[in-house]
Amino acid sequence: RERWTGASGTLDIQFADQKQEFNKRPTKIGRRSLSRSISQSSTDSYGSAASYTDSSDDETSPRDKQQKNSKGNGDFCIKNIKQADFGRREIEIAEQEMPALMALRKRAQGEKPLAGAKVVGCTHITAQTAVLMETLSALGAQCRWAACNIYSTQNEVAAALAEGGFSVFAWKGESEDDFWWCIDRCVNLEGWQPNMILDDGGDLTHWIYKKYPNMFKKIKGIVEESVTGVHRLYQLSKAGKLCVPAMNVNDSVTKQKFDNLYCCRESILDGLKRTTDVMFGGKQVVVCGYGEVGKGCCAALKAMGSIVYVTEIDPICALQACMDGFRLVKLSEVIRQVDIVITCTGNKNVVVREYLDRMKNGCIVCNMGHSNTEIDVASLRTPELTWERVRSQVDHVIWPDGKRIVLLAEGRLLNLSCSTVPTFVLSITATTQALALIELYNAPEGRYKQDVYLLPKKMDEYVASLHLPTFDAHLTELSDEQAKYLGLNKNGPFKPNYYR
Amino acid sequence: RERWTGASGTLDIQFADQKQEFNKRPTKIGRRSLSRSISQSSTDSYGSAASYTDSSDDETSPRDKQQKNSKGNGDFCIKNIKQADFGRREIEIAEQEMPALMALRKRAQGEKPLAGAKVVGCTHITAQTAVLMETLSALGAQCRWAACNIYSTQNEVAAALAEGGFSVFAWKGESEDDFWWCIDRCVNLEGWQPNMILDDGGDLTHWIYKKYPNMFKKIKGIVEESVTGVHRLYQLSKAGKLCVPAMNVNDSVTKQKFDNLYCCRESILDGLKRTTDVMFGGKQVVVCGYGEVGKGCCAALKAMGSIVYVTEIDPICALQACMDGFRLVKLSEVIRQVDIVITCTGNKNVVVREYLDRMKNGCIVCNMGHSNTEIDVASLRTPELTWERVRSQVDHVIWPDGKRIVLLAEGRLLNLSCSTVPTFVLSITATTQALALIELYNAPEGRYKQDVYLLPKKMDEYVASLHLPTFDAHLTELSDEQAKYLGLNKNGPFKPNYYR
Amino acid sequence: RERWTGASGTLDIQFADQKQEFNKRPTKIGRRSLSRSISQSSTDSYGSAASYTDSSDDETSPRDKQQKNSKGNGDFCIKNIKQADFGRREIEIAEQEMPALMALRKRAQGEKPLAGAKVVGCTHITAQTAVLMETLSALGAQCRWAACNIYSTQNEVAAALAEGGFSVFAWKGESEDDFWWCIDRCVNLEGWQPNMILDDGGDLTHWIYKKYPNMFKKIKGIVEESVTGVHRLYQLSKAGKLCVPAMNVNDSVTKQKFDNLYCCRESILDGLKRTTDVMFGGKQVVVCGYGEVGKGCCAALKAMGSIVYVTEIDPICALQACMDGFRLVKLSEVIRQVDIVITCTGNKNVVVREYLDRMKNGCIVCNMGHSNTEIDVASLRTPELTWERVRSQVDHVIWPDGKRIVLLAEGRLLNLSCSTVPTFVLSITATTQALALIELYNAPEGRYKQDVYLLPKKMDEYVASLHLPTFDAHLTELSDEQAKYLGLNKNGPFKPNYYR
Amino acid sequence: RERWTGASGTLDIQFADQKQEFNKRPTKIGRRSLSRSISQSSTDSYGSAASYTDSSDDETSPRDKQQKNSKGNGDFCIKNIKQADFGRREIEIAEQEMPALMALRKRAQGEKPLAGAKVVGCTHITAQTAVLMETLSALGAQCRWAACNIYSTQNEVAAALAEGGFSVFAWKGESEDDFWWCIDRCVNLEGWQPNMILDDGGDLTHWIYKKYPNMFKKIKGIVEESVTGVHRLYQLSKAGKLCVPAMNVNDSVTKQKFDNLYCCRESILDGLKRTTDVMFGGKQVVVCGYGEVGKGCCAALKAMGSIVYVTEIDPICALQACMDGFRLVKLSEVIRQVDIVITCTGNKNVVVREYLDRMKNGCIVCNMGHSNTEIDVASLRTPELTWERVRSQVDHVIWPDGKRIVLLAEGRLLNLSCSTVPTFVLSITATTQALALIELYNAPEGRYKQDVYLLPKKMDEYVASLHLPTFDAHLTELSDEQAKYLGLNKNGPFKPNYYR
Repeated sequence: RERWTGASGTLDIQFADQKQEFNKRPTKIGRRSLSRSISQSSTDSYGSAASYTDSSDDETSPRDKQQKNSKGNGDFCIKNIKQADFGRREIEIAEQEMPALMALRKRAQGEKPLAGAKVVGCTHITAQTAVLMETLSALGAQCRWAACNIYSTQNEVAAALAEGGFSVFAWKGESEDDFWWCIDRCVNLEGWQPNMILDDGGDLTHWIYKKYPNMFKKIKGIVEESVTGVHRLYQLSKAGKLCVPAMNVNDSVTKQKFDNLYCCRESILDGLKRTTDVMFGGKQVVVCGYGEVGKGCCAALKAMGSIVYVTEIDPICALQACMDGFRLVKLSEVIRQVDIVITCTGNKNVVVREYLDRMKNGCIVCNMGHSNTEIDVASLRTPELTWERVRSQVDHVIWPDGKRIVLLAEGRLLNLSCSTVPTFVLSITATTQALALIELYNAPEGRYKQDVYLLPKKMDEYVASLHLPTFDAHLTELSDEQAKYLGLNKNGPFKPNYYR
Repeated sequence: RERWTGASGTLDIQFADQKQEFNKRPTKIGRRSLSRSISQSSTDSYGSAASYTDSSDDETSPRDKQQKNSKGNGDFCIKNIKQADFGRREIEIAEQEMPALMALRKRAQGEKPLAGAKVVGCTHITAQTAVLMETLSALGAQCRWAACNIYSTQNEVAAALAEGGFSVFAWKGESEDDFWWCIDRCVNLEGWQPNMILDDGGDLTHWIYKKYPNMFKKIKGIVEESVTGVHRLYQLSKAGKLCVPAMNVNDSVTKQKFDNLYCCRESILDGLKRTTDVMFGGKQVVVCGYGEVGKGCCAALKAMGSIVYVTEIDPICALQACMDGFRLVKLSEVIRQVDIVITCTGNKNVVVREYLDRMKNGCIVCNMGHSNTEIDVASLRTPELTWERVRSQVDHVIWPDGKRIVLLAEGRLLNLSCSTVPTFVLSITATTQALALIELYNAPEGRYKQDVYLLPKKMDEYVASLHLPTFDAHLTELSDEQAKYLGLNKNGPFKPNYYR
Repeated sequence: RERWTGASGTLDIQFADQKQEFNKRPTKIGRRSLSRSISQSSTDSYGSAASYTDSSDDETSPRDKQQKNSKGNGDFCIKNIKQADFGRREIEIAEQEMPALMALRKRAQGEKPLAGAKVVGCTHITAQTAVLMETLSALGAQCRWAACNIYSTQNEVAAALAEGGFSVFAWKGESEDDFWWCIDRCVNLEGWQPNMILDDGGDLTHWIYKKYPNMFKKIKGIVEESVTGVHRLYQLSKAGKLCVPAMNVNDSVTKQKFDNLYCCRESILDGLKRTTDVMFGGKQVVVCGYGEVGKGCCAALKAMGSIVYVTEIDPICALQACMDGFRLVKLSEVIRQVDIVITCTGNKNVVVREYLDRMKNGCIVCNMGHSNTEIDVASLRTPELTWERVRSQVDHVIWPDGKRIVLLAEGRLLNLSCSTVPTFVLSITATTQALALIELYNAPEGRYKQDVYLLPKKMDEYVASLHLPTFDAHLTELSDEQAKYLGLNKNGPFKPNYYR
Repeated sequence: RERWTGASGTLDIQFADQKQEFNKRPTKIGRRSLSRSISQSSTDSYGSAASYTDSSDDETSPRDKQQKNSKGNGDFCIKNIKQADFGRREIEIAEQEMPALMALRKRAQGEKPLAGAKVVGCTHITAQTAVLMETLSALGAQCRWAACNIYSTQNEVAAALAEGGFSVFAWKGESEDDFWWCIDRCVNLEGWQPNMILDDGGDLTHWIYKKYPNMFKKIKGIVEESVTGVHRLYQLSKAGKLCVPAMNVNDSVTKQKFDNLYCCRESILDGLKRTTDVMFGGKQVVVCGYGEVGKGCCAALKAMGSIVYVTEIDPICALQACMDGFRLVKLSEVIRQVDIVITCTGNKNVVVREYLDRMKNGCIVCNMGHSNTEIDVASLRTPELTWERVRSQVDHVIWPDGKRIVLLAEGRLLNLSCSTVPTFVLSITATTQALALIELYNAPEGRYKQDVYLLPKKMDEYVASLHLPTFDAHLTELSDEQAKYLGLNKNGPFKPNYYR
């Protein structure tokens, strides 16, 4: 769905104000967490699981197949139920690295905080999502699920879920029509009415708004993970059209720090190495933007012996870059001398043709920001330049004088396309989603209005605490006296909501 | 005033709810910026300026002296007007490192944003403050000033200010009575009525509340810098007693990052070296608390080859510590093995006698947090322990079996007592204060209510931008197209108010 | 040839003392530099070039084919001359990253320091080697070449060399018999007698010793790169059997630092990520051995937020580890708690079954040292343990209670098997080889005896200086006065021979 | 003795070739370890011990006083025997940080490896030296001692030694005549003839050569610590005039790494902070020279957020700088933009007037190398420049246009003048000296010829191992099988002699 930019005409009438959103669609995939296997599949089968998927050459559309699992249940639509065993193993491996969800399951043996919940979900369908879904089920919820991306479904995992009794409607390589068909199948079932929405990108929410607005009467809330989806919700809220409470999971502290700072600190190295085998030591690198993503990239490259320059528009981030030991420059000052250019701005046309013309031979150009517009790739599609695909995700763009620029992932997100995201990071997101569902589902009448909320600090802290055992980390407890002195509850929250 | 803990009885009647505050007074000095010379004077004259002050053995109280500067003006009260030349040189040196204030002065040649302002101030009186005061004056303000601390005044600087025509009431070594007398002299002048307050600790505000509540009718606002003072203002606001707008300078982003993260990163090393000459390489250190201060301490010590353990109560900070590469432990787990214990919690009784008993011989114990209660020093004042002062600010506490603990600054703030704060950091604070005064003084009627405000993001960014030239840093400007894409004004603000 | 451990019987008679060497054969491949493409081919075709090779399904042995290039020359034996164009492009790409050799070629336009040299070589045959060979040719030498490893030949590159007129005898997937046949074809040519040897592993030298000992009369010297080959030469020298001077390229400073410290600093991260996608932040890692390899691994992992423990046998390296900020432990102290175990010792049985039994579930075990005996993998081949291959180069070894250990590359070298070596590093080695050949070939009679020599410091410095332009680095020159003061020649050598 | 540059005429006749050495005298103090108290005394009494000394205003020369300790012994000459108690406490504190010497004492309870040794010594007389002397005594040696520097003696420590029965001839503030008189008193005693020399700078050795050449017949060896002294010994050896074996302690691995890399990593920060309170974050720094000292300085400053440039003459060190992430430049390229210039070259006139003229206002200039000629300070003594002493060790040099350069320690060694050396580092040196004495004294006839030797690797390793307990570090032992595999003795040496 990365290249997909429209929606059917009828919808557009009512949602004119969202049109700009649809044009920015690729954004939505940007910062979002993708599992190991997804990026593998999109990087031409480095790993093992994905290739298994790839080898499936069955051309029949799942919609045309008879679907039935070993217990005779057929309320799902997937590629091939026979892959269930393989998918189950992938899920089991993921479980080992998602201790927080497993801990929630354990707690749920006593209480079922989601008893009665009917969750309709639309996310990437991966082993990690499966662990989330099975956790929601253990907590008492019924789930129906579709994919939020036409390429990202792990067919084996979908098979395992279907075999396990989940109503999953998703396969790798859906058409746009398939995409909406799957969503509709989730929502539109006689005698079943969802009361919670878990969305990633806002398409599911969108669909219900358009097709089944009455459903919102029974829906207790929406949990939304993506930048784009959250943006849409705020727009709805501003326009007074949001009719249920929504939880913005994207901006929780834990998720932000992990997805951006810590995750990019690792994936920038991984992405560059896998694509170019470049040696980092002594390389001159310019990083555009010193937000969390830029900070992560800069820290990693400096640590590996690169000489890093930073560009910024915001004086506060600029001052941080200075104090952290980076020369703050304009791109034009260093563009001729650098070996690597990395964009982390969220902005557009940061690296334009003029700069590309001035780069030196062999310069590597890539994007770690949240859209694919940071590098003006279109400007390179001119007759005098030759493109040469030298590896998957790696193009040499060749100037008439023989100068070559090494462009990665055609300017799309490097860490999405060329590296992997550890399950541990996905675990944080999934746990936050589960807690957000619990919070909204159990909140007393009136606590949440028809507005967009951040996860309460206390639950953010709870997510963090569930991940500490992985590091064998031991938290200190306040004494009564200390709690009183600080004016805090011993169990938190420990920080104000605005804390970062 | 560090050891001073009471206020006169009459005041207490009306301010019963602030009593707890007065007991916490040392806190107020905690995170506040102190200049090089102050800490020098308290570390037995390493530098030059302070010793000059010390050698002054004139015992007459300034209040009993005739005060007159070379132009015949006598509206001030200081130690010795003859020290003015020396003080002037100190001010000139400080000017070199406070480029932002000098830039404001230059801009003020055209407009005088503080024309008509009558500022009454109560802060540390140092060369850096003098640069601020002379800047306010250049911007059009009239100023009257007292010291917020009975020990911190640089007499030479006060002399230079008096010689320059400022009404300054302050000297090093005031009595408590002197302290309030000086404040009163600032405020209580026939035919002069302040319309702005610049406070550091809340004592000046307090005094006006008690003695001259009617003055608030003409006062446009309060700018407050300290944690304690801000806390008091929030209490007043909550109680509905705040009668003018107040600006909380303490919590501005730039100040927080500089005073805490970056400043502590440097001062922890400096404070430890100057007092103990300890070698950092290979030392095992436990840092209690992983907020900004703890992060700074940990980063510095890790960089110098120490092995650092962290304790935390907040799971989010705990998870950050893990990802940053520190073992998260309870103090009891490592207390027997560590060479250095550093508290950065803001909490009390973090290092109690039980832990001190278990430390190994030679263990260094110090406090970088914001109060002097983090280490339970009182518990060490027992008959079986011997105290030996081995250097200024360094005590050996000796157990009956000969074990020695090296206690720094008697548990008070290490960086306040034993290291220095670069003028550059003070420059950020002073610039923020000046801009806050300008903002409040010029705000259209009604923009600010009787509440406590943070500095608008845009002014925070302006402070940062004024400090970039020091680093020869070049900011990138948004193109029109980019600004539109991002939905931002080209001149900022670039980040939401909650950005950290 | 990694699994190949014998040589034909007749040879063994005379070379009894080398038998132990043959049993250690895999060692030879250990620290030696391998190009991108080689490791790719051994990691199941991640990259592009290798897969091209793989897809060639021509089963005829090259020895049975008619070999002829476009000019009619047939003095070579390779897989497929038609791949020459593709290979030429690979060579051209490599040339861009081997500036030092290109600089040597330029200098050779004036003088031909290898005019008259007849070099017989036995090394990996890769694009980088091709750049070396074509440089030797430009310097005046005639070359005949065989592969030192039965798997590592890039067939396309061999084709390009053959097409360019080089007598190359090598293909990917030689049998042992092929291997010696190729070497023999290099050496044994009517009317052509080599006068220089360039060897990597000692097999070529070995063969001449056995078959054509008289050749040594005309041979001016041997240049040997590998640990194993150098070890053999020292044994020959000790036994008084070395009959020509030999240059030990392996122990040159530049090579050591690059191949070990700097290269491992990058490849440990790359190798771990590509195989396991592990997140480094917060991981507990034990690194066995703190030589250059261990130092590189520790520095990288610490920089990425891992908590690193070190084991050592040598107190000096141990003290360095302490000062660098690592806890020095015995393996038994931390084996239960660590997430990753990395061996860098050069020793055997460092990680034995007893330790493997005590590791926690999910622990990753890998080897960065110079032999495949550091981890006692054989001890894991017992009936109660289940092996599961989860990816190429990644095995799960499963204990009866379900515990899984993640074993990488079956205990063989991680960076050889699972990551790549930048061309820049190979450039340093290749340049050193070229200079060693020039030195030995041009040395005045008697300068070098029948012994093993290190490259003169000055040439080591020259290799380094040829690589500085890559970093746009500008060397300072001594003034005459300074050179005199230091007692140095202005052109070096600047350091004593023992300098590291 | 830093400013002392001559020797009496008669000596010069025979030692003409050493004249250049005498002109370089300050060099000798360069890299040599100095204790906390020494540098304190030379930095105007920051600490406690030294100030005690300073307050002594007794003007009588010790040579004119009656010298007698409490037991009636008078074979010494010191300032004031009454200071013995204070000195004893200083020695006891030092003992706590010199665990290796204390361990040697313990071992000596069984054997007395220095029984019969008569050691004459000439070193700095500090608490740390006292621990060494008392250790030598415990090992069986008789000791007579003089100071190697006319300013560095801690009088209280000398008193404690005299009270304890040692024949010490030293006081703070000796004249040149006193200096040689003291040395002579050590050596020239009826009925006592030294058989071992422990020297630091070569003056004692020199004196014996001149005055009592026959003494060498009974002397078993010389242990020399300083760069200068070692240089002299090599010259004597070259000239065939060295008549006993000598041990070069200066070049032992442990000492080099500690005194240079690790020690400078800490002292560069300390020295800059104590003198200038400069903030490191964001500062642009150029470090001249990338040997061990430069590496230490660069690592520390980079870690604290400075942007560091490096200059080098040696391409190998230059390449290391590149790989470690530093821009390699010529001084002229960055001299206008940097905030701090640090020399670490061992060369002369590295920073000449031309560069000083081009530095920007406020630039800090200091020297960490091994001589005081790296900065051409003499060139700044011209009429148009004004010098202003702003603090001890800190001069502002002011250009006619008002530009100020901040010159530290007048170009002498920063870490000698303005920071301290941890006792732990001195412990390594002292232990090495003790072991060198033991080795030479006990070596079988003929093992050491009349030449200069490095400490055997095994003893170097032993020194290191004695310091590991300080870090609670646990060394791994080779199994028999492993030792055999590696061809090593289980007890070492583990590395070849050339290992660094």
